[in-house]
Amino acid sequence: MNKNFARLLIGSGENSPEIRYLTGISTPDDFICFEYSGTVTALMSKLEISRAREAAKPQVAVLPESDYGTTRVEIISKIAETLHLDGFEVPPQFPLGTADKLRSKDLVIKVSEADFCPGRISKTPDEVAQVTASQRAGEAGFARAVELLQASSIDNDGKIIWQNTPLTSEILRAEIDCAILKHGSLPTGTICAGGKQSAQPHNAGSGQLFANTPIVMDIFPRNPESGYWGDLTRTVVKGRAPAIVKRAYEAVKAARDTVKSEIAIGKSCSKLHTLAEKILDQHRFFTGVSDGEPFGFFHGLGHGVGLEIHEAPRLSPRSNHTLAGGEIFTVEPGVYYREWGGIRLEDLIYLAPSGEVQCLTCAPDFLEID
Amino acid sequence: MNKNFARLLIGSGENSPEIRYLTGISTPDDFICFEYSGTVTALMSKLEISRAREAAKPQVAVLPESDYGTTRVEIISKIAETLHLDGFEVPPQFPLGTADKLRSKDLVIKVSEADFCPGRISKTPDEVAQVTASQRAGEAGFARAVELLQASSIDNDGKIIWQNTPLTSEILRAEIDCAILKHGSLPTGTICAGGKQSAQPHNAGSGQLFANTPIVMDIFPRNPESGYWGDLTRTVVKGRAPAIVKRAYEAVKAARDTVKSEIAIGKSCSKLHTLAEKILDQHRFFTGVSDGEPFGFFHGLGHGVGLEIHEAPRLSPRSNHTLAGGEIFTVEPGVYYREWGGIRLEDLIYLAPSGEVQCLTCAPDFLEID
Repeated sequence: MNKNFARLLIGSGENSPEIRYLTGISTPDDFICFEYSGTVTALMSKLEISRAREAAKPQVAVLPESDYGTTRVEIISKIAETLHLDGFEVPPQFPLGTADKLRSKDLVIKVSEADFCPGRISKTPDEVAQVTASQRAGEAGFARAVELLQASSIDNDGKIIWQNTPLTSEILRAEIDCAILKHGSLPTGTICAGGKQSAQPHNAGSGQLFANTPIVMDIFPRNPESGYWGDLTRTVVKGRAPAIVKRAYEAVKAARDTVKSEIAIGKSCSKLHTLAEKILDQHRFFTGVSDGEPFGFFHGLGHGVGLEIHEAPRLSPRSNHTLAGGEIFTVEPGVYYREWGGIRLEDLIYLAPSGEVQCLTCAPDFLEID
Repeated sequence: MNKNFARLLIGSGENSPEIRYLTGISTPDDFICFEYSGTVTALMSKLEISRAREAAKPQVAVLPESDYGTTRVEIISKIAETLHLDGFEVPPQFPLGTADKLRSKDLVIKVSEADFCPGRISKTPDEVAQVTASQRAGEAGFARAVELLQASSIDNDGKIIWQNTPLTSEILRAEIDCAILKHGSLPTGTICAGGKQSAQPHNAGSGQLFANTPIVMDIFPRNPESGYWGDLTRTVVKGRAPAIVKRAYEAVKAARDTVKSEIAIGKSCSKLHTLAEKILDQHRFFTGVSDGEPFGFFHGLGHGVGLEIHEAPRLSPRSNHTLAGGEIFTVEPGVYYREWGGIRLEDLIYLAPSGEVQCLTCAPDFLEID
């Protein structure tokens, strides 16, 4: 006999993309949401209920959690009692503490084997527009950085000087981030890593910026209203790029552009990663480990972007996803060597269900800034 | 016989305050961390390992996760095998999907009944300095807002005009947030809610701002390097405040300041909440529910601030915490009525282990801006 289950989520609209996707509600604190017979119900505290009612997607029922109980376990038990449930289906990241307490009350808590919101990977036209809006804010940030680097000079020590002040990663980042804010998005950890710092893909960058060495700028703003992200990386050199940096730039660009030209429905994400690696190898930018530190191309080729900055599909050697149409994802090969730094170029792609490949990134590509 | 357990965490340095607290490492993606015999070990991907080694707190061992396995369950099973463990102690928010898989391999996964990082509630001098630095960034944001409102005019429709343009919540927020960025912190969802929008405590605010009606500004920046937050709320009126708004402001200020004067080691957090409610009642700003919508003072009096924006201790009717010294927390009474809007005033308090009460907020208090 089939058991009677509802689907259950606990999270905040800010840290749980599933709960935001299903309800449209964004909150700083966790709330409980369940889906039964096709109806999604969000249970809200007094603090959030009136705002949640306005923000909720159509057809989502918003009820006071106090109608169900005081503690989390009381509230969930009451849902089960009211709907005569045997238990709940939950996502893998459901909190164990709550699950154990519910199981001790003889409720079945079953982890969903399938993706909890399988629709999330395929973006609607509205979602494409939201990601694009955040991407435009990131591009405004990059344009501001270029403007500032163009207006800068280089002193005798090779330091970049802007408005008579030594230019640091911190100043450059604040200028990029202000441009993002003025475009209505929130900066979330913009990377401006210069010189050898750029050899660490997630080093945010700090201190003086120098000419004739790479500056990696990775800009990933989030729209606070929609919750959708953009993601953009460019690498530039103020002044003249050394020969090795120029060659690495051309190799990474070739890898990115070749992968972009190969994107199509039916393509394997892991094979796209392998293709990028192969092109970098052909350009003699090899990947490996030396003294316990990786070098070369040692991150995934890309990742989905939506209500999470890193979501499905992953474009990595271990991915088993085949492009089906509807996905938004980055293509961002990079190479990193502690001797001189790193190069990364990242575009954002929408593969429409029709098979059309749209590049959602409009930022220009160039290495040197005079 | 005692079982052999290690403590286990999975999270990102960005969404798990415990993992950041124990390791000092901040990452966008989840990683595995365990503590055994007093040693904390973080297992990192190739992408993060070199940065993690630099960022890790002293005594934290940083190892490549690939030494242990490929999947999360493989890696954790290998830890158990290597250390001859019977299982792991985990925090309540540990992901159920992983726990169920580990249990099916006969590992005991025990949810910690006690606070997983009990030291987090009591801030070290360094943590107090980090929170204070973020608070200063928020105050710079508020100062910018005041400057801008002072430089604004009021048109015949009561609209606030700044630099010949109608002033919106969005413009005011971007100006506040740019000031925060230039002070080295990240804005995270600054509230600038005017008029009736201010009746919803977490409404971020949108559209035209008007004179002679409250503007609630709730500013909570996070320092991207340290991970520590600040939190500040002020309410102002451009022009003249109506009598009810003035009375509400005085009531909220009296509640806040009376509570502040009562803070001491040994005080009950729930009683401090009740005290604020009582003072608001005495000023005839009552709390209740009408047509399913709450009015009055319907959120907690305050919350701890540290690596989370909302953490222990909670100052709410349901809190069972007694102040012990070392806590940093907000005191933020507010009243909200859909007829005219809301007033909230929020200060950040450090109760030193010596019993000294330090207000970490330096922003001035005033209602009207000419």
